[in-house]
Amino acid sequence: MTVAVLPWPHRHLLDVEGLRAGELERVMVLADEMSFSLRAGARRTDLAGRRLVTLFAEPSTRTRLSFDMAARSLGAEVFHLDPPMSSLVKGESLPDTVRTLAALGADVLVMRHRRGGAADLAARYFPGHVVNAGDGCRAHPTQALLDLYTLRRRLPRGVAGARVAILGDILHSRVARSNAWTLTAAGADVTLCGPPEWLPDVARWLGAAASPRAIRTTTRVEEALADVDAVMTLRIQRERSGGVGPSSHEYAQRYGLTSARLAMARSDAVVLHPGPVNEGVEISREISSGQRSVILDQVANGVPVRMAVLSLLAGNEGDAPRSPTAG
Amino acid sequence: MTVAVLPWPHRHLLDVEGLRAGELERVMVLADEMSFSLRAGARRTDLAGRRLVTLFAEPSTRTRLSFDMAARSLGAEVFHLDPPMSSLVKGESLPDTVRTLAALGADVLVMRHRRGGAADLAARYFPGHVVNAGDGCRAHPTQALLDLYTLRRRLPRGVAGARVAILGDILHSRVARSNAWTLTAAGADVTLCGPPEWLPDVARWLGAAASPRAIRTTTRVEEALADVDAVMTLRIQRERSGGVGPSSHEYAQRYGLTSARLAMARSDAVVLHPGPVNEGVEISREISSGQRSVILDQVANGVPVRMAVLSLLAGNEGDAPRSPTAG
Amino acid sequence: MTVAVLPWPHRHLLDVEGLRAGELERVMVLADEMSFSLRAGARRTDLAGRRLVTLFAEPSTRTRLSFDMAARSLGAEVFHLDPPMSSLVKGESLPDTVRTLAALGADVLVMRHRRGGAADLAARYFPGHVVNAGDGCRAHPTQALLDLYTLRRRLPRGVAGARVAILGDILHSRVARSNAWTLTAAGADVTLCGPPEWLPDVARWLGAAASPRAIRTTTRVEEALADVDAVMTLRIQRERSGGVGPSSHEYAQRYGLTSARLAMARSDAVVLHPGPVNEGVEISREISSGQRSVILDQVANGVPVRMAVLSLLAGNEGDAPRSPTAG
Repeated sequence: MTVAVLPWPHRHLLDVEGLRAGELERVMVLADEMSFSLRAGARRTDLAGRRLVTLFAEPSTRTRLSFDMAARSLGAEVFHLDPPMSSLVKGESLPDTVRTLAALGADVLVMRHRRGGAADLAARYFPGHVVNAGDGCRAHPTQALLDLYTLRRRLPRGVAGARVAILGDILHSRVARSNAWTLTAAGADVTLCGPPEWLPDVARWLGAAASPRAIRTTTRVEEALADVDAVMTLRIQRERSGGVGPSSHEYAQRYGLTSARLAMARSDAVVLHPGPVNEGVEISREISSGQRSVILDQVANGVPVRMAVLSLLAGNEGDAPRSPTAG
Repeated sequence: MTVAVLPWPHRHLLDVEGLRAGELERVMVLADEMSFSLRAGARRTDLAGRRLVTLFAEPSTRTRLSFDMAARSLGAEVFHLDPPMSSLVKGESLPDTVRTLAALGADVLVMRHRRGGAADLAARYFPGHVVNAGDGCRAHPTQALLDLYTLRRRLPRGVAGARVAILGDILHSRVARSNAWTLTAAGADVTLCGPPEWLPDVARWLGAAASPRAIRTTTRVEEALADVDAVMTLRIQRERSGGVGPSSHEYAQRYGLTSARLAMARSDAVVLHPGPVNEGVEISREISSGQRSVILDQVANGVPVRMAVLSLLAGNEGDAPRSPTAG
Repeated sequence: MTVAVLPWPHRHLLDVEGLRAGELERVMVLADEMSFSLRAGARRTDLAGRRLVTLFAEPSTRTRLSFDMAARSLGAEVFHLDPPMSSLVKGESLPDTVRTLAALGADVLVMRHRRGGAADLAARYFPGHVVNAGDGCRAHPTQALLDLYTLRRRLPRGVAGARVAILGDILHSRVARSNAWTLTAAGADVTLCGPPEWLPDVARWLGAAASPRAIRTTTRVEEALADVDAVMTLRIQRERSGGVGPSSHEYAQRYGLTSARLAMARSDAVVLHPGPVNEGVEISREISSGQRSVILDQVANGVPVRMAVLSLLAGNEGDAPRSPTAG
């Protein structure tokens, strides 16, 4: 029996909104294959001869390094354009920076930016592939994909039908927003929980298409955690919430994930966090380093999931210009 | 028929003053070959086993990345020594830094520095090859070479006999200074145009050897642009002009390249800019992104031109020490 | 005759205290082999397929670059985690950063940190290999090893029985501390010399195990230099001495290594400095660039010595997890 592999229908990965359930599945299956390649130490060439440039305008440990490792594991040449060294400080516009990178011969651009929509803007000017590694409060698609991958591997009854609580500053979290899309697309029920100032109007937050989806909001942590299969905790991001909402101390008191609170969840519930963790604020040390934490799984799974994404995009290159010479 | 290839007679590329017309031609022809290799995706080994270190003491997007891509396309190992991470912050002298890099096993040093003459100083202490990627107001040789390459490909009647206007803060522009040399060496007539505070005394600026060359200066933009084949616009570099000269707004009013002003040039005239562009100041967005702009060609051509330079230098290695051990 | 090669008994290189004389010898012999490989341009694969991450929380030219060159010369993939770009700025703890790097698939971690003991702390949480590239005032093991290697090659009568003076802020110098261990372990007599505020109580400084060792302290530079075979000068590290001790000017007057003072040493004595050098303070330009300086040898020897260390550690990998995927 032959399986006909369809070309991947997206040139970029800017958001997870556009991904259907079948496409999510395809990323998951390919991530399994990448995970196997990594364990076997096999050399892959999915991106051989391709030039990937990272443009991170916000600090990052795991995400940039994870992309770097993923890309090199696929045979790509990786170049870093750290903003302190870049023309961004000379006042160049993002479209001009992006066109310049394309002219230099970049095939793939992995970017993180303060501003929501920056990756979409870049994609309009970049003939290759843009991967959004986080734009403002809007989206962090590879994080949502690796979270989905982690839950698929760790939830004994699977993601479809599972109950997942997301705790924290939901309104300003690109991780929460992207996860709300992918988790519901995969059939999970999602409860968003936090102080009222940090809870979004879901229809406005996700767009009209999301209204039929299985997303609830609550300010009561006990309600959010009751009988869930998974709890996703978030970093409080003062740099985005603009001073609105409780202090870290107040948040820890009212919403921080402690053993007492986790006891309301199912006895086999797993705990996620996109990292970096501020222990004692959104999560206690006991839990983040405990048996039910899958935080390090998330980190580890980031590499094969990003390999899968890059491989799918690169396979769909089509007529994108690859030569660095113009004339 | 056999063509005997002479060794490249220069160990370093510190300035373009020393390059004869025949040598410029040789760089151009080899850049064509490099451009072909890039398009064909061919693996080159011109710099295989060589270690190239970049030392950029000023911010840069395109230049550092362009050298990085060029060097890796030739098989070199590339290492970055960003000043914030370097011993420069501990007060080490440039000669000591350079000797240290040589002792570590660096074969090629690509450097940018605030101070004019820094690359020459470094070359006195570096047994390998130094490539000047911009030193203060003095020289930016690879930029001038890629500009020449771009003009050769885009001027229908060639560079010899062409009329080229350079607009901006000429006095503080290493790009203008290096282009004045290469363009006149290639047979073009050059007009330097800008506010009187930013116009140099050409003989003093380029040195006595340049006096017979075809270089005029004028403060009148209409005079500079009349019937030219190419207009090169420059960034206003406040960091070097020291507050002397018009404001950005005044400059834009009197010298900014607009469609009205470009209409004075030949109807097929091309427009260059070394980037990054400040649209609305030295050039209008309409022109920088328009049909006659070759700005992205310049960026793209930077890679093969730098490959050509690195390959020529490396082929001339002679008895430069390559072992990192002292013994 | 066959030589049975024992596995290297250490998983990490955190300090030199744990290394026996025979182990030091083993590093030296392997460094000779690495030096030969480098000169021959041979491709080594000791670290092929391994991922080495550098985490430097203090500025460095030679050390980071030296490790980078060493690791790539052994076939490793090298990734840099510069703190300004890292999660350290978001308040993540060192154990969490280290666990994250392991989860991402890092096999070797080369780290420099302000705090003494940071490498030991990291090693407790890292399943691969940690190499201490300098922690506070405590240890700089690869510097001491390359100094030993340099002395072995440059002292005509060998290191055993040689007299070595170390001049400077001994108390705050990790270089002095690590050299005190390795030099005495290799049979040298060591004299530590500096202003009284900068001289340690040796037994407390090195620990009880060091008391029988051949280490003297003196505040009199004439006494320290009399008939020595080697003089090791140190940078004055204001960032660690906390304002205690003489000014740079006073130090230069009383302890700076000048030709007059060097004349008290043996006529064939060599002069070392870990770099970067502040000429005119701890050492005169005449000496640092003179015939008896082996400072550039130290730099050059750093690459093969670090190759030897990395190769020994990697050969001892045992059951360290290498797969970046968790589940």
